[in-house]
Amino acid sequence: MTPRFDGWAEKVRTTFGRQGMMQALSAEMTDLAPGRCKIAAPFPDRMRQHHGYAHAAVTFALGDTSAGFAALTLMEEADEVLTAEMKINLLAPAAGERLIGRGRVIRPGRRLTIVTAEVWAEADGREVQVALLQGTMMPVPG
Amino acid sequence: MTPRFDGWAEKVRTTFGRQGMMQALSAEMTDLAPGRCKIAAPFPDRMRQHHGYAHAAVTFALGDTSAGFAALTLMEEADEVLTAEMKINLLAPAAGERLIGRGRVIRPGRRLTIVTAEVWAEADGREVQVALLQGTMMPVPG
Amino acid sequence: MTPRFDGWAEKVRTTFGRQGMMQALSAEMTDLAPGRCKIAAPFPDRMRQHHGYAHAAVTFALGDTSAGFAALTLMEEADEVLTAEMKINLLAPAAGERLIGRGRVIRPGRRLTIVTAEVWAEADGREVQVALLQGTMMPVPG
Amino acid sequence: MTPRFDGWAEKVRTTFGRQGMMQALSAEMTDLAPGRCKIAAPFPDRMRQHHGYAHAAVTFALGDTSAGFAALTLMEEADEVLTAEMKINLLAPAAGERLIGRGRVIRPGRRLTIVTAEVWAEADGREVQVALLQGTMMPVPG
Repeated sequence: MTPRFDGWAEKVRTTFGRQGMMQALSAEMTDLAPGRCKIAAPFPDRMRQHHGYAHAAVTFALGDTSAGFAALTLMEEADEVLTAEMKINLLAPAAGERLIGRGRVIRPGRRLTIVTAEVWAEADGREVQVALLQGTMMPVPG
Repeated sequence: MTPRFDGWAEKVRTTFGRQGMMQALSAEMTDLAPGRCKIAAPFPDRMRQHHGYAHAAVTFALGDTSAGFAALTLMEEADEVLTAEMKINLLAPAAGERLIGRGRVIRPGRRLTIVTAEVWAEADGREVQVALLQGTMMPVPG
Repeated sequence: MTPRFDGWAEKVRTTFGRQGMMQALSAEMTDLAPGRCKIAAPFPDRMRQHHGYAHAAVTFALGDTSAGFAALTLMEEADEVLTAEMKINLLAPAAGERLIGRGRVIRPGRRLTIVTAEVWAEADGREVQVALLQGTMMPVPG
Repeated sequence: MTPRFDGWAEKVRTTFGRQGMMQALSAEMTDLAPGRCKIAAPFPDRMRQHHGYAHAAVTFALGDTSAGFAALTLMEEADEVLTAEMKINLLAPAAGERLIGRGRVIRPGRRLTIVTAEVWAEADGREVQVALLQGTMMPVPG
């Protein structure tokens, strides 16, 4: 998969830096390549469910966002990215010290980009997959 | 749809009060009935995307949580609720002063409860539907 | 919801008549209105699962197709319709004499049309909902 | 991933042989391993859409069924398998001589088994991925 212009990585990182949701989660983009993006966040103190596990929406945020930025690496320079639809299967309760989203483009396209993402929880140095996502990203004028 | 014990509403409201995610969003449960739940939250200051609209994860949080508590109204007294899987279609950018999630049980069950939810954005007193969700909730020992 | 040209109903019925899948299922379009479509098929003799119930793919076919033709009622004269993505929750085993798909447009759009569908099984004159679907339809040049 | 009893492969193949839907598609199970299943079918003559491509329901059938049998390889001897929910993203029009579904278990479980599947179309000896699926399988008493 080939980006459409030089400076794609800088654009993606700049856009990530402007995203309030990622700041609210203290998330970092820890890896970026054409069609791939990895985001890590400390386990949230507040955004939990009643069980003490991360709320499904936090897990969703990491999966959806890593997938969205993976898609953005392959879009035109002027485009931003929006989620058209996303499906998440929760595989295990999310507990530990860190959550990691790994997004990946399955099929890039002018109108629709099909993406997938995995979310992993890191506890005591061990990683457990807590979610699998599959969805569609759309370019929108930036 | 008939709750399985007296005091179902009190239990649901207590569980809602313990949920850090809903507190982080300053969300309120504004309506509750057997198989139905409505949650409202002020438009988030921080948890936005790069466009200034609410992040898909915030919209997801309101839909998923209202659907989860709708399911909880029909579960056994000792049960808590977990999202097994959830699909969201984003219909329009979420902007305005308030976000409202309306969850509803389509089919209750011992093992799986099928739910749906709508998320609406309120701007200048007018409501626009911004998302539709469909998914599965599961009882887990509380 | 308003069709974009006269003759939308005739176009939809003609397209339906050319669809081999619907012929294979001996399906009939029993109702059509702007943004809505109903399709009924006799319970399939062959396309069953190992349990004797209708295969999930047959239930999917009725839901997906009724949703697709509901979307087509609102598209431009020159457009045909393709499923971009579809989610199905199976609610109950599909048994009986007849399967009925009821598709409905939630949000029409130039690029994407968000749809939902219910599938019902008719047994001894009684209807049971067997599936709920939610997805995205796309116009394509005809 | 480890099957729970000897003879799992024989059981899966027997169940496959009883499935009318797979017979209607002249499908063959071309590969089977713990947590994995591959099914191939000649491109359908009749079950097409109005464009001449395979109907989304046929693509769905191959993905859903290969995922279901992948799940069945890891279930108890007495269990059969049912689809609880399934999401399909269509990536490209399905044309060619043969359709191939590759199902895989992501997370096996007593109550729910999370699965994924790819569907590929073979044309002139070249394979193109036409769909990606993600969903949930459930054991039911056989």
